[in-house]
Amino acid sequence: MNEQQRKRIVILGGGFAGVYTAMHLEKALRRRDDLEILLINKENYFVFQPMLAEVVSGSIGMLDTVSPIRRMLPRTDLHVREVESIDIENQTITTTPGLHPHPNVVHYDHLVLALGNVTDFRGLRGLPEHAIPFKNLGDALFIRNHVIHALEEAAIEQHDDDFRKQLLTFVVAGGGFSGVEVAAELNDFVRKVIRNYRHVDQAEVRVVLLHSQDRILPELDEKLALYAQKILAKRGVEILLKTRLAAATGDLAVLANGMRIPTKTLISTVPSSPNPLIDALKLPKEKGRLKVDSGLKVEGTENVWAMGDCALVPLAGGGFCPPTAQFALRQAKTAARNILAAIHGGERKAFQFKELGKLGALGHRSAVAQMFGINVSGFLAWFMWRTIYLMKLPGWGRRLKVASSWSFDLFLPPELVQLKLDQSTGISHEHFEPGQEIFREGDLGDRIYIMAGGAAEVVRHDGEREIVLARLGSGEYFGEMALLNQTTRNATVRCVEAMDVLSIHKREFGLLAANLPAMRESFEQVMKQRSMANENRLRHVAGRGE
Amino acid sequence: MNEQQRKRIVILGGGFAGVYTAMHLEKALRRRDDLEILLINKENYFVFQPMLAEVVSGSIGMLDTVSPIRRMLPRTDLHVREVESIDIENQTITTTPGLHPHPNVVHYDHLVLALGNVTDFRGLRGLPEHAIPFKNLGDALFIRNHVIHALEEAAIEQHDDDFRKQLLTFVVAGGGFSGVEVAAELNDFVRKVIRNYRHVDQAEVRVVLLHSQDRILPELDEKLALYAQKILAKRGVEILLKTRLAAATGDLAVLANGMRIPTKTLISTVPSSPNPLIDALKLPKEKGRLKVDSGLKVEGTENVWAMGDCALVPLAGGGFCPPTAQFALRQAKTAARNILAAIHGGERKAFQFKELGKLGALGHRSAVAQMFGINVSGFLAWFMWRTIYLMKLPGWGRRLKVASSWSFDLFLPPELVQLKLDQSTGISHEHFEPGQEIFREGDLGDRIYIMAGGAAEVVRHDGEREIVLARLGSGEYFGEMALLNQTTRNATVRCVEAMDVLSIHKREFGLLAANLPAMRESFEQVMKQRSMANENRLRHVAGRGE
Repeated sequence: MNEQQRKRIVILGGGFAGVYTAMHLEKALRRRDDLEILLINKENYFVFQPMLAEVVSGSIGMLDTVSPIRRMLPRTDLHVREVESIDIENQTITTTPGLHPHPNVVHYDHLVLALGNVTDFRGLRGLPEHAIPFKNLGDALFIRNHVIHALEEAAIEQHDDDFRKQLLTFVVAGGGFSGVEVAAELNDFVRKVIRNYRHVDQAEVRVVLLHSQDRILPELDEKLALYAQKILAKRGVEILLKTRLAAATGDLAVLANGMRIPTKTLISTVPSSPNPLIDALKLPKEKGRLKVDSGLKVEGTENVWAMGDCALVPLAGGGFCPPTAQFALRQAKTAARNILAAIHGGERKAFQFKELGKLGALGHRSAVAQMFGINVSGFLAWFMWRTIYLMKLPGWGRRLKVASSWSFDLFLPPELVQLKLDQSTGISHEHFEPGQEIFREGDLGDRIYIMAGGAAEVVRHDGEREIVLARLGSGEYFGEMALLNQTTRNATVRCVEAMDVLSIHKREFGLLAANLPAMRESFEQVMKQRSMANENRLRHVAGRGE
Repeated sequence: MNEQQRKRIVILGGGFAGVYTAMHLEKALRRRDDLEILLINKENYFVFQPMLAEVVSGSIGMLDTVSPIRRMLPRTDLHVREVESIDIENQTITTTPGLHPHPNVVHYDHLVLALGNVTDFRGLRGLPEHAIPFKNLGDALFIRNHVIHALEEAAIEQHDDDFRKQLLTFVVAGGGFSGVEVAAELNDFVRKVIRNYRHVDQAEVRVVLLHSQDRILPELDEKLALYAQKILAKRGVEILLKTRLAAATGDLAVLANGMRIPTKTLISTVPSSPNPLIDALKLPKEKGRLKVDSGLKVEGTENVWAMGDCALVPLAGGGFCPPTAQFALRQAKTAARNILAAIHGGERKAFQFKELGKLGALGHRSAVAQMFGINVSGFLAWFMWRTIYLMKLPGWGRRLKVASSWSFDLFLPPELVQLKLDQSTGISHEHFEPGQEIFREGDLGDRIYIMAGGAAEVVRHDGEREIVLARLGSGEYFGEMALLNQTTRNATVRCVEAMDVLSIHKREFGLLAANLPAMRESFEQVMKQRSMANENRLRHVAGRGE
């Protein structure tokens, strides 16, 4: 058949909903060639979410929980790109540029929106800058490597007890399945490998789980949730209930109840928001999710379909589907059938499915499960968890690899390799709370700071006496002296009112200063003035002191 | 024993030389407690170099070829930091700051320098910006992910044949063991997985190996090297001899003979240079390597030892040790013995060792070997390669994992997951050669460019006619319009004389422009002037055209 006459179905998103829709559509391709399927996803792999927490602890290999989409979908075209915009009127999708900047626009006849949701820290003080989400493989690897980094630093820090304890404190916000699983795996991992760190005391390790309600795991029966709490507490996880994250800095988790937990590792699985691409669409929505009919077609459209976490899918018995993989898998089947019916004619089907059960792993051969109305916990639930999810993994190759990783995990110690994935810390936003030191006199100068809001004071110590040299506000910058002179910090800068800053690493600052003479000159000028002002101020204070 | 009285041996470098020296020293710790050993390395793992190329092809897992140093050296302190400076006079080492910027200085009684060498592109036009080294695990993972990225882009590029071919061209410079192994593994990998890319033709794949001499593998007998060349050529590797890389851009490998190979993937294993830290030391050196006596003590010192690739170790029969793992392993044993003799008294030993043989893998169950003077090639050599190196891997756990990866590799297809390791492309240097387009009219604007040298012209197309709008030189910048206005490029910029530029991604540029009003204003001003000038110029040209 001529390429022009083919109907093109474009699927956005490579999670359970998107990939399994393509899989069901591919079956039709065996019989006819009047269709083509294109899936657009920002990664070339599908993530099997239930095992993601095990990547953090290394009980499975780094790639064991992901599958290359190309191998799952041999008859589907795959574009590994981010979606830049969706044009419903002209039926086109624009993707971000790849290795060269020419724009890439694709046309669709039918569009499937399966973009899921995102962890969204916007509007939460300091969280966008300092909290780590736990959603995809990149997050899991980042967390794993960051935790090992913190342990390595703790091993070096033999004198500053407070800082070492801060390095050994790991905070997870959100007590749903995903938060509980990551806290449990992280706890197991750290307590196991800490033995390899000489001079580091296991007693100094803290793993804290925060949850806003009065018990964790709201998805489950109270009895199971309380069992899970007991198990986690026994293994050393501190559970803080009825509180939530209010703010974060690079050194602190600030809770709504005022408590401040010094930490270098803050993971947050909440709050969830719709994908910004869905947000931008002018289609009927409720609570940010797309309104679809029982056949998964978006209301008011003829060729746009939505499912998974980004859609509000009505259930036959009333209510809406929860955002879980079980539902997404079945929605995919219904959607594929109805899209084919829309193209070739035929009866459409309404989505219906009764949930089979819920499973949550607690690490260390323990889990909780609710299956067909029966509660199971402990080793039996853990065995069910492993068996069921192993069978659900796509492809025999992957199952074999996971089974072999699990076997090794029985007698070999967990992996302890820290991969430095992101070399450059470049240019980034940072948030500080009152009382925090941005840097101390005598520190090595590796960043400069430009203030976007808040207030700070510059102080220098003269023996016991503390001399305030200056107060800084929005638009001012600091930290440039140590960079330009390649020496250590000659003063301490302390946050007075909650501050948002842009910080630039010395590498990037050097590149900019070398290539933008105007920028360098302006920094040098301010530096000179400050140097003189500081000297005067110190002379003045010293004079008074005599 | 009191901490103060203990002698501290500090080892710099976690390669074969450093780790095995610590291992031999640890044996002495079993009997006495008057010693402490500290190893400083920038990673927390030891890399088993011989298998690194297999990480590129995925025939072993990503972590299979590395071992956590802590587990190899349970009685040694490990500081995972980069060394900032070495002070021989005061016997101290300063390391870079970790998760907080307080300086870290350690004192030594004996110092072991085992810092290896580095791939050094300095002074080679465009190589520091665009060539990928192949030295450590990070490089191997980067290459692997970059190659998959290029394949993904090739799958999308169905219209621009030249660009697709460029994406499918992979160039490796350097025909020693390391270059040959990476070219062979890369070639195997790409030709195997290309089947999963619909609409991409295997015939378009090019893997090119460059070598400056008249045959590859100078380490081996000519007969074996010619055999290796035949095998590689049969598998589709193009071998270009008697030429070398002269320059590189993001789109080109430029050879010394004038040939230009369009590629997005340029790997170079040459040239090697001494570690910059060794360079900076005021100790006797020859060809950049530290001069040591037959006991591995650095000439003119009493407590500084050197070995491995950064030292020039004399051989008993005359000449010097080649920079290979076999020698480093034996040097480590001698050095450990002599350091202990220096501390506790006793006889020192002179280093001596006769090389056992050489092995090089050619991928796809083939290798070349020279053992005890006998040449072996093909399957038998490959079998020897695998057996010998599997046994040399440190630790039974690691051996088991590699053996299981190799078994899976017999019947499962290679991993195809692309990890996006470095999200931000930030601020970077780029190099362009005359004739290259930096961007084209109509492209998406994702970076701005500041010229550090060379010349470019700005052109716009009016139907068939090309109008030169401006000529740009050092210190000028371009590409800012599309960023500030969030539109596509309104002109093409082409390199006229070889250019070095600093390019800033729109994310970083946005952050800087938002926080540095002076910078934004200066850009906006130039933009306004240019906009007006361009309009005048176009009007003028249009007028003449009528």
